[in-house]
Amino acid sequence: LATFQGKEKSKPPHCKPPYFIHSNPVKIMTDRRFFNPAGPFSIAQLMQASQCKLYRNAAEVMELPQEVRFADLASLTQATPSDVSFLSNPKYTDSFLQSKAGICVVEEKHVALAPQGMWLLVAKNSYAAYAKISQLFYPNATSDGVIHATAHIHPTAILAHNISVGPNAVIGEGAIIGEGCIIGPGVVIDHHVEIGKYGRIGANATITHTIIGDHILIHPGVRIGQDGYGFATGNGLHIKVPQLGKVVIGNHVEIGANSCIDRGSSADTIIGDQCQIDNLVQIGHNVVLGKGCVIVAMTGIAGSTIFGDYVVAGGQTGFSGHIYIGSGARIAAQSGVISDLPAGAVVGGTPAVPITQWHRQSVALKRLANREEKK
Amino acid sequence: LATFQGKEKSKPPHCKPPYFIHSNPVKIMTDRRFFNPAGPFSIAQLMQASQCKLYRNAAEVMELPQEVRFADLASLTQATPSDVSFLSNPKYTDSFLQSKAGICVVEEKHVALAPQGMWLLVAKNSYAAYAKISQLFYPNATSDGVIHATAHIHPTAILAHNISVGPNAVIGEGAIIGEGCIIGPGVVIDHHVEIGKYGRIGANATITHTIIGDHILIHPGVRIGQDGYGFATGNGLHIKVPQLGKVVIGNHVEIGANSCIDRGSSADTIIGDQCQIDNLVQIGHNVVLGKGCVIVAMTGIAGSTIFGDYVVAGGQTGFSGHIYIGSGARIAAQSGVISDLPAGAVVGGTPAVPITQWHRQSVALKRLANREEKK
Amino acid sequence: LATFQGKEKSKPPHCKPPYFIHSNPVKIMTDRRFFNPAGPFSIAQLMQASQCKLYRNAAEVMELPQEVRFADLASLTQATPSDVSFLSNPKYTDSFLQSKAGICVVEEKHVALAPQGMWLLVAKNSYAAYAKISQLFYPNATSDGVIHATAHIHPTAILAHNISVGPNAVIGEGAIIGEGCIIGPGVVIDHHVEIGKYGRIGANATITHTIIGDHILIHPGVRIGQDGYGFATGNGLHIKVPQLGKVVIGNHVEIGANSCIDRGSSADTIIGDQCQIDNLVQIGHNVVLGKGCVIVAMTGIAGSTIFGDYVVAGGQTGFSGHIYIGSGARIAAQSGVISDLPAGAVVGGTPAVPITQWHRQSVALKRLANREEKK
Repeated sequence: LATFQGKEKSKPPHCKPPYFIHSNPVKIMTDRRFFNPAGPFSIAQLMQASQCKLYRNAAEVMELPQEVRFADLASLTQATPSDVSFLSNPKYTDSFLQSKAGICVVEEKHVALAPQGMWLLVAKNSYAAYAKISQLFYPNATSDGVIHATAHIHPTAILAHNISVGPNAVIGEGAIIGEGCIIGPGVVIDHHVEIGKYGRIGANATITHTIIGDHILIHPGVRIGQDGYGFATGNGLHIKVPQLGKVVIGNHVEIGANSCIDRGSSADTIIGDQCQIDNLVQIGHNVVLGKGCVIVAMTGIAGSTIFGDYVVAGGQTGFSGHIYIGSGARIAAQSGVISDLPAGAVVGGTPAVPITQWHRQSVALKRLANREEKK
Repeated sequence: LATFQGKEKSKPPHCKPPYFIHSNPVKIMTDRRFFNPAGPFSIAQLMQASQCKLYRNAAEVMELPQEVRFADLASLTQATPSDVSFLSNPKYTDSFLQSKAGICVVEEKHVALAPQGMWLLVAKNSYAAYAKISQLFYPNATSDGVIHATAHIHPTAILAHNISVGPNAVIGEGAIIGEGCIIGPGVVIDHHVEIGKYGRIGANATITHTIIGDHILIHPGVRIGQDGYGFATGNGLHIKVPQLGKVVIGNHVEIGANSCIDRGSSADTIIGDQCQIDNLVQIGHNVVLGKGCVIVAMTGIAGSTIFGDYVVAGGQTGFSGHIYIGSGARIAAQSGVISDLPAGAVVGGTPAVPITQWHRQSVALKRLANREEKK
Repeated sequence: LATFQGKEKSKPPHCKPPYFIHSNPVKIMTDRRFFNPAGPFSIAQLMQASQCKLYRNAAEVMELPQEVRFADLASLTQATPSDVSFLSNPKYTDSFLQSKAGICVVEEKHVALAPQGMWLLVAKNSYAAYAKISQLFYPNATSDGVIHATAHIHPTAILAHNISVGPNAVIGEGAIIGEGCIIGPGVVIDHHVEIGKYGRIGANATITHTIIGDHILIHPGVRIGQDGYGFATGNGLHIKVPQLGKVVIGNHVEIGANSCIDRGSSADTIIGDQCQIDNLVQIGHNVVLGKGCVIVAMTGIAGSTIFGDYVVAGGQTGFSGHIYIGSGARIAAQSGVISDLPAGAVVGGTPAVPITQWHRQSVALKRLANREEKK
C-alpha cells in the first residue's frame, strides 16, 4: 500500500498534497465504517488463499505456527506486527527493511532482505498473491437475499435464490437473474435480459437487450444494450437503422462507472471473459472483445472492431471501426488506431505507429522545431 | 447485414472472435425476444415504405405479385426465400451472387448481377431504402398509454394523451409532455420542461431547463440542461456565474447514452433538427448545432461554439469555445479544432489542418524520424 | 451577456445559427419560468454584494440614491434602464457606448467611456463583481425542508435540519447529511457517507465511500466513490485488488454531470476546496487535487497523480498515473501529460511540452510537410 509520506520526501516542494482540507488530518488507513472486513486469519489461511510458501529468517518453514493471527492489511511503513503487508515494486525495498509488519508477501529474490523474525509468504507474483489475501480480508459484498418492497419485478421475471434487489430497481418481463446477484437501487434491467450468478449491478445502471455471464461487476451509471449509432443518410435526412443485435458479456467481467456498451446492429456486441473495462468507456455496436482485455478509462471503440485476447488499451485511446486488433497488443494512452494491428503490437500516437517509432517521432519533431528556431 | 463469417475468411489468424464464450455458440441473428417485429409484408408494402421500383430477371415488373410475403430481414448469406436483404457495399457482391434472399434492395448498377428469380427493390440509395424497410419490420416502440403508479407527476404538469411513464419517473411543476411520449423508469423531467410529440426518453435520464421538439430519442443516462461551466475567478476564489439560459432541441434529434448538454449561460444552447449525437458527448453552454449534425462518441464542444448544418465530427474530437464551424465541415476522429472552419472543410489533427495536409504531416514526420535514426 | 446578434455581424455567411428551429424565434433572454429571480435591488444592495464603488458621469458618487431599483440582468445591447449590465471584454466597448443599461459593472479604465447618466459600479475585476450581482438576482435554490414520502432513509442516518430529499432518493445506514442540503430525485447516498452543509446533489447521482465538505454542487449522474480500477494479473487472470480507500472532497467544490471519481485503493482520493470539475471527467484512485483546480470536460487523471493548487487542465487532457503537477500549471486542451510538471508550467501536446515549444513544433511540422510536398 503506497503512502503519500514516502512519496513526498523525494518530491519537489511544488507539491503539497492538501492533507488538511478538513479540520482533521486525513489518515491514510482504511476507514472501516465503509467496509466489512473479515479476519483475523492464521498463517495457514493466508497460505491457502495465496498459494504461497512460508519463510522466516531466510529459511522455508514447514511446520505452521498455529496460534499466530493477523488482523488487517497495511503498507510496509504503517504495518504493525498484527498486519499483513507486501513488497512488489523494488523501489520500496528500503521500507521493507524497516517494516514492522508481522507477515509480508514477497518474491524469492527479496527473502534474504527481510527483517529478522518477519514471517514471509513467498510467491512468484507477490502482487497477485497479495490481491488474493486482500480479498480474504475484504471480501466482496454478498447478497442479503432481500428484495426491497419498492423494487418493481415483473411477474414473469425469474429470480434464482438469494438475490438482493435495492429500492426502486426495475426488473422487466422475462428477465432471468442468477443466484446471489446484488441489484443496486434504481437499476433498470429491461425485458428478457439474462444475468448469471453472483453478479453485482451498481446503482442507477441500465441494461437492455443483453445476456451476461457469472461474477459480473457493473459499476453505477453503466449503460448496456441501448441502440447503436446507426443511420443511413439520404436527401438530407438521417434515417435510423433499427439495431437488431444484442450484447453478450462473459464471466468475471468488470465495467466501470458511466461506461456505455451499445448493442449490435445485426450481429452482437461481445465482451469476452475477464475483460476489465474502466470508467467512461464507449464500446460501439458489433464490437468484439476477446478474453481478458484491459480497456482503460475514456477509451472509445468504434463499431464492428474486433479485439483478440488480452489487448491493453491505455486511457483515452480511440479505435476506428471495422478493424482487427491482435491478441496481446498494447496501445499507449491517447493513441488513435486506424488500421489492423498484429498480435503483440505495441503502438502509440495518432495515427498509431510502433511505440519506438512514436518516441523517435516525438524526439525528431522537438529537434526540428529547435533547429528552425535557431535559424 | 454484415456477418463475422464473411469477415473472418479474409482476416489474419491473429483474430479469433470469441464466439463461444457461452456454452452455446452466439448465433448471428436477431434474438426476437428483445424485439416486437411486425410483418410479414407484401411487395407492395415494401415498395411503399422504401419508394423503390420492382425488378426481376433484369427487367422492371409493373404488375405486383399479390400473394408473396416476406417475414424478416437477413444478411445476404443467411437469408432464405422468405427474407429481405440488401446490397450496398460492393465488396459484398459475391455474397449477393450466392444469396438465397427472396427479395433484395439494390442500386441499379447491381440489377444485372442478381440471381435468377430474385425479386429486386431498386433504389438510388439502397442502404437508406433498406433502413426504411427495417423500420417497417422493427418499428419504434409505441406508448402503451400507461402511467405507472409510482411515477411522480406534479399536478400542474400537462400530459397529452397516450403517454407512457415508467416506474419512479418524476415530472415536475408545469412540465408539458406531448402525445405518444414514452418516459422511461427513473427519468427526471424538471419543472417547466417541454417535450414534443412521440419522444422517447431512456431510463434514468435527467432533463432540466429545456424545450424539446417532436420525435426525440434520448438514451439512458443523458443529462440535459444542468448548469454550464461558468465562473469568474478573483482573489483565489472561483465565483459561480448563474447560468440563465436554457436548452432548445429540435425535431428528430437522437442523443446517445450518458451524453451531456449544458444549458446556456445567457443565450440558449441549441441543437438543430435531425442532429445525431452519439454516446458520451459533451456540449457546453451556448453551443449551437445546425440541422443534421453528426457528432460521434466522446466529442466535446466547448462553450459558445456554433456549427452550421450537417457538420460531421468524428469520435473524440474536441472544439474550442467561441468558434464557428461551417456547414458540411467534416472533422477526423481525435482532432482538435481551435479556430473557425469554412463550409465544407475537411480537417484532421491537433490543431486541425486540412486533411491532406494532415496526412502529409504524418508521412513527413515518419520519414524525418527515420532519417534521424539512420544518422 | 454575449449576444448572437453581435457576433453574427462580424462572421462569415457560412454560419447561420438556426434561430428558428421552432415556430417562434428563440429569444435571447432569460426564460423566467426556469428560475426564481430575486430583486429588484437598490444600488446600495448591489454595492454590498459586489464590493464596488459607485460612479456617474466620470465622478465617484458618495451619496447613494435611495429610490432607484434594478429589476434584472441584461446584456449591454439588450439592457433597459431598469437592468444591470457589465463590461469586461474590451471588444464589447462599442456596445457599452450605446447601452441603455441603468447601471453597469465596469473597471476603472472604462469609466470615462460611459454614456451620460449611466450609473457605474467600479470593480477591480468587473466579471467577478458581476458574478456576485448575478448570484444576488439568481440565488442558488434553497432547501424547502421537505423529505419526499418515497425517499428511503435508513433509520440510523443523521439528517440535520432543513434538508430537502427528492422522490426515490436513498440515504444509507449511518450517513450524515448537513443542514440545508438538497438531495435530488433518485440520488443514492451509500452507508456512512458524510455531506456537509448546503450541498446540492443532482438527480440520479450516486455517492459511496465518501466524505464531503460544505457547499458542494454535484450535478446529475455523477459517480463518486466506486471501486478504483485495480487488479493484479497472473496466469492469465485479472485478480481484483480490493479498493480500501475513500474519497475526501473539500468545500465549495463543483462536479459536472456524469463525471466519475473513484475511491482510493489504500490512501484516499482527495479533491481540494474550490475545485471546479466539469462534465464527463474521470478521476482515478488516489488522485489528489489541491485547492481551486479547474478541470475542464472530458479530462482524465490516472491513479495516484497529485495536483498542486489552481492547476488548469483544458478539455480532453489526459494525465498519466503517479505524476506530480505543480501549482498553477496550465495544460492546453487534448494534451497528454506523462511526467511531472513544475509549478506554473504551461504546456501542450502529447507528450506535453512547454506551450511555446508545442506551437513551434506545429509550425515546423507544417513547413516540413510543405517542403517535402514540393520536392
